[in-house]
Amino acid sequence: MNDERMDRILLGPGPSDCHPDVLRAMASPLLGHLDPAFLAIMNETRERLRALFQTRHSLTLAMSGTGSAGMETLMVNALEPGDKIVVGINGLFGERMADVAARTGAEVIPVRAPWGRILEPEQVRDVLRAHRRVKALAVVHAETSTGVWQPLEDLSRLAREHEALFLVDAVTSLGGVPVQVDDFGVDGCYSGTQKCLGAPPGLSPVTLSPRFEEVLSKRRTKVQSWYLDLTMIRQYWGEERFYHHTAPVTMVYALHAALGLILEEGLERVFRRHLLNGRALQAGLEAMGLKLFAQEGHRLPQLTAVWVPEGVRDEEVRGRLLREYGIEIGGGLGEVKGRIWRLGLMGHSSRRRNVMLLLAALEQILGEAGHPVERGAACAAAEEVYQKSASPDDR
Amino acid sequence: MNDERMDRILLGPGPSDCHPDVLRAMASPLLGHLDPAFLAIMNETRERLRALFQTRHSLTLAMSGTGSAGMETLMVNALEPGDKIVVGINGLFGERMADVAARTGAEVIPVRAPWGRILEPEQVRDVLRAHRRVKALAVVHAETSTGVWQPLEDLSRLAREHEALFLVDAVTSLGGVPVQVDDFGVDGCYSGTQKCLGAPPGLSPVTLSPRFEEVLSKRRTKVQSWYLDLTMIRQYWGEERFYHHTAPVTMVYALHAALGLILEEGLERVFRRHLLNGRALQAGLEAMGLKLFAQEGHRLPQLTAVWVPEGVRDEEVRGRLLREYGIEIGGGLGEVKGRIWRLGLMGHSSRRRNVMLLLAALEQILGEAGHPVERGAACAAAEEVYQKSASPDDR
Repeated sequence: MNDERMDRILLGPGPSDCHPDVLRAMASPLLGHLDPAFLAIMNETRERLRALFQTRHSLTLAMSGTGSAGMETLMVNALEPGDKIVVGINGLFGERMADVAARTGAEVIPVRAPWGRILEPEQVRDVLRAHRRVKALAVVHAETSTGVWQPLEDLSRLAREHEALFLVDAVTSLGGVPVQVDDFGVDGCYSGTQKCLGAPPGLSPVTLSPRFEEVLSKRRTKVQSWYLDLTMIRQYWGEERFYHHTAPVTMVYALHAALGLILEEGLERVFRRHLLNGRALQAGLEAMGLKLFAQEGHRLPQLTAVWVPEGVRDEEVRGRLLREYGIEIGGGLGEVKGRIWRLGLMGHSSRRRNVMLLLAALEQILGEAGHPVERGAACAAAEEVYQKSASPDDR
Repeated sequence: MNDERMDRILLGPGPSDCHPDVLRAMASPLLGHLDPAFLAIMNETRERLRALFQTRHSLTLAMSGTGSAGMETLMVNALEPGDKIVVGINGLFGERMADVAARTGAEVIPVRAPWGRILEPEQVRDVLRAHRRVKALAVVHAETSTGVWQPLEDLSRLAREHEALFLVDAVTSLGGVPVQVDDFGVDGCYSGTQKCLGAPPGLSPVTLSPRFEEVLSKRRTKVQSWYLDLTMIRQYWGEERFYHHTAPVTMVYALHAALGLILEEGLERVFRRHLLNGRALQAGLEAMGLKLFAQEGHRLPQLTAVWVPEGVRDEEVRGRLLREYGIEIGGGLGEVKGRIWRLGLMGHSSRRRNVMLLLAALEQILGEAGHPVERGAACAAAEEVYQKSASPDDR
């Protein structure tokens, strides 16, 4: 597997590049899943996850599946047949939440906004008022399909007023922008390892509040998924160390190392780095005459969706980036398939050199594809963002 | 993570040691899950899995979870509320299958044998005759909790006679003893990567027959797990390459490399190696005066369960093996917790040098714990098994 095709720069919606230390960690020999040395790594990983989620929740751990398994974990543990859940849908992952939730036998009440726009608190308020005994409100913090950054504070307050659990998809936000689980009053939150955390896909960090644990302890039925049943899994991650399933040891090494790098850099600096690189990229794209997809004021820095310009063929551009530069970017999903690109600057991929390279490469390819570009304008616009940045740290 | 505690020899019920090539494969930089270079690795992995399962089943792939996720995959895809399934229970993993199956709303009809013994075809026949329209018969090929090797041919024939799907847990058998999916008429089979395949835990290879696919296409209800829904996942592993969830890229590298090593060595030689090392270990244990747990004639070579001898403390022996020799072995689960040990010689761990070291270490520790041992007898008995082996290849 050592040919040139293996040497990519991952600037799509995930996975992102792993730091060499993370790759090296995975080459470590295995430990058994009940070995005291491994349990020490698990404990440290759990502490590091709490730091990332900015929470003191006791029930914080990594599920043995990708981010979608984390989504399903929250749904199958929170919901029982006949329960009601309000799900915010303004992109593919909101739609997925609704699908997953409906499979529990719960009644799903959708609140919709157009793709690319946030959910407004007023909409959510009206829906919550119109239904009695809603058990949970679920929204996506960072919509990977659109690049929208959803504000959480008002929604959290509404959930609390209606005594509903507040569930949040932080797959693409955790480690890129603040996910203040305790401050935001989030009762259930899940993420993925392959976005801003900078580890490979394969684990889903989750954190659950005492309110969520109470719901869990009051269930009338067994959790429908054995594999994702937190009533059992928490006994393995907890002091009991009760065997449930064999933990994905190597993936835990990777997550442990990746979280260590983030905390060493410092959360504030990590967020500033993501913000700065994202804003520089967005300035460059606009200087190239491209239109950003997500609503202004609510654009994620770590994932930028941009319209494919008139007259340019989506797949040709992505194919050339991959073949000629080894750069992967993402295409659109669902209703915007073929019409947008998704550019990720997540984790170790969020670097100034990647911003400059991507802008230069895009300028070249779009120019040749007939899109009018002023050569050098994109990089200059990005550079201006970097220059304006106060801190020399941010480079 | 580079201290001495990380340098173990894994001789328990899994995970087993990984070959250095497998560890190195995981340190490879990531590819995107839709990158043509990654899709080529997936295709090759699928071909290699078919070789291991000895099948031509089109629907052969690796689920993004550990072996227990593979178990749940078969149950949630095959079963709908009200269906009947006969489950063989003669150990912890049979019990788990029954639990997982019951969560689908299916009626579970257990067929029980004592832990350590096989299921007899007559029992299964009687149960199948006593119930109408049984949708599936599920059994464990290699019971990881007891070391029992269940014959499959008669059970397969019975399943077919009653028009039931034949589902088989091959978590601990695949890559250690023959799992002839096509010849045995297995309709659904799952395994784990961390046993005889010699990769880390984290993926579950599965293979489904056309009969299983037909059941899938005739479902009246959605599969209750979105994450494990084969009606969608097969479109990602198939030609459509329809995005479902982000594949655990690094784990696929590991599985790809591990399968490559097995096929390079050759399936027949791999099976002979497991058989020989297992028989040598068992001879050594008996020479030490220990009693094997599993029914004679049905003992797995790759996983040997042995009674903890009278007057010896389980945890003390396992603790000393770990601390003084860096060797991990497994304890008993469920009804034999604290009463048996489980010794694994799986994948890269199945080596003569591990057999000799484990016997020597056990002899030393048991002798000091007051168990009467004749020094050197265990290794001599093992050596005799090796000497009798015809082929010098088998060392």
